[in-house]
Amino acid sequence: MPGLIQSIERSSAVLRLLADGPGRLRVKQIADALDLPKSTAQSILRTLTHIGFAEQDPRTARYRLGRALLDLSSTGLDANELRAHTLNWADALASRSGEEVYVGALRDGGVLVVHHVFRPDDSAQSMNTGRVVPAHATALGQVLLAYRVAAAEDVLAAGLMAYTRGTVTTRQALTRTLAVTRAQGWALSVEEWQAGRAGIAAPVRTFGGLVVGAIGISGPVERLCDTRRQARPALVEHVVAAGRAISRDLSGPQP
Amino acid sequence: MPGLIQSIERSSAVLRLLADGPGRLRVKQIADALDLPKSTAQSILRTLTHIGFAEQDPRTARYRLGRALLDLSSTGLDANELRAHTLNWADALASRSGEEVYVGALRDGGVLVVHHVFRPDDSAQSMNTGRVVPAHATALGQVLLAYRVAAAEDVLAAGLMAYTRGTVTTRQALTRTLAVTRAQGWALSVEEWQAGRAGIAAPVRTFGGLVVGAIGISGPVERLCDTRRQARPALVEHVVAAGRAISRDLSGPQP
Repeated sequence: MPGLIQSIERSSAVLRLLADGPGRLRVKQIADALDLPKSTAQSILRTLTHIGFAEQDPRTARYRLGRALLDLSSTGLDANELRAHTLNWADALASRSGEEVYVGALRDGGVLVVHHVFRPDDSAQSMNTGRVVPAHATALGQVLLAYRVAAAEDVLAAGLMAYTRGTVTTRQALTRTLAVTRAQGWALSVEEWQAGRAGIAAPVRTFGGLVVGAIGISGPVERLCDTRRQARPALVEHVVAAGRAISRDLSGPQP
Repeated sequence: MPGLIQSIERSSAVLRLLADGPGRLRVKQIADALDLPKSTAQSILRTLTHIGFAEQDPRTARYRLGRALLDLSSTGLDANELRAHTLNWADALASRSGEEVYVGALRDGGVLVVHHVFRPDDSAQSMNTGRVVPAHATALGQVLLAYRVAAAEDVLAAGLMAYTRGTVTTRQALTRTLAVTRAQGWALSVEEWQAGRAGIAAPVRTFGGLVVGAIGISGPVERLCDTRRQARPALVEHVVAAGRAISRDLSGPQP
């Protein structure tokens, strides 16, 4: 039927078969049941496994429903996994930009810092991994809210606390900020949380384009911005490239 | 990534977004969040709605998760819906074949007759709609078991009762019968349930190729079969054509 996507229809038929009984199914049985070539069934099952909707028993090679179906509202990626995938890229971004690097994910209306790399110099710094920072007042959080509508609504409903005179505190202003973030694909926040500090962040996506995290740099306004308080293009480029590289990693085959 | 099907990955990302919060989402918001063209998001949502994984609020046009996700093990089609889709085709099959027509679906290890059309003559007949007939001993049931592995396992585990001397009563024989059924795309059962009676049945599929029912004719062996007790080709053709026509109906847009 025009307008419908056949592979999605087929994947739902496969999921229904897997849900059908306690038995686990072989590729061939699924192909036979749906009258598909085995290679087609194989591709669908490989994809469903990749996204967590199906699981293959490594011993028997048979398939069953995956756990991700039970908890669709999770991103399918916990903080440790996100951190594991970002370690190398975060280090590289710190050395390229010369700034502190943060990786964050939404958690209860705020941004949980899942990874923090110190600025590569000898200055005294304190580790912020595990800390929760405000979503609406940081570049990291603005990126996450830009792509997660429901979370943005929750944050708006909870009220936007003013941390500085630059903090975005109205629905209208935050909506505009998030629209700009989506349009350019990255966020800049200047003295919205802490005086004298700025941040630049970009999204981290998993398969299907779902944003599951953000990576960014944080530093003094004068280093991250030019005299018109615009983000320095070279830094934006480094941040966006790091986000893309991690997204490619996350969208690839699971380890 | 090679071997993975992008539209399935994207559909999982859409489902996760829909699961994300209590809010309902517009197409545009989903497209923005996943960085997809609106038309692509629209196709994915239309397909997800069609298969019951998403639902659109007719007043607001916003999407939420669909009920089919909560009960994947149902076929997504109840007996009344199956019946509604088969009424016209079953009548046509009865007049083309000159035989009684049955439409059935698996229910608790047996075949629930969801629709029964009398043989188009003046003979005395009794209505069998709502009756449950044995799956392993009828053409209707053999078609259903051929494409639903888990149900076939359940039936085997429960034991195969002998109704006549022709009833298939061993795992090996039933497995062979189901393989033949899959290979030819229809089933013939001759005196396996009732002496002197035969049945010819074909699958009814919904989207993705999932078999959700069977349609068939039932009548005296000498009318359904030739002298070598093989199914008469013209009757097979009518039955298979009816199954295909209903499958097209069921795979099309929901009413």
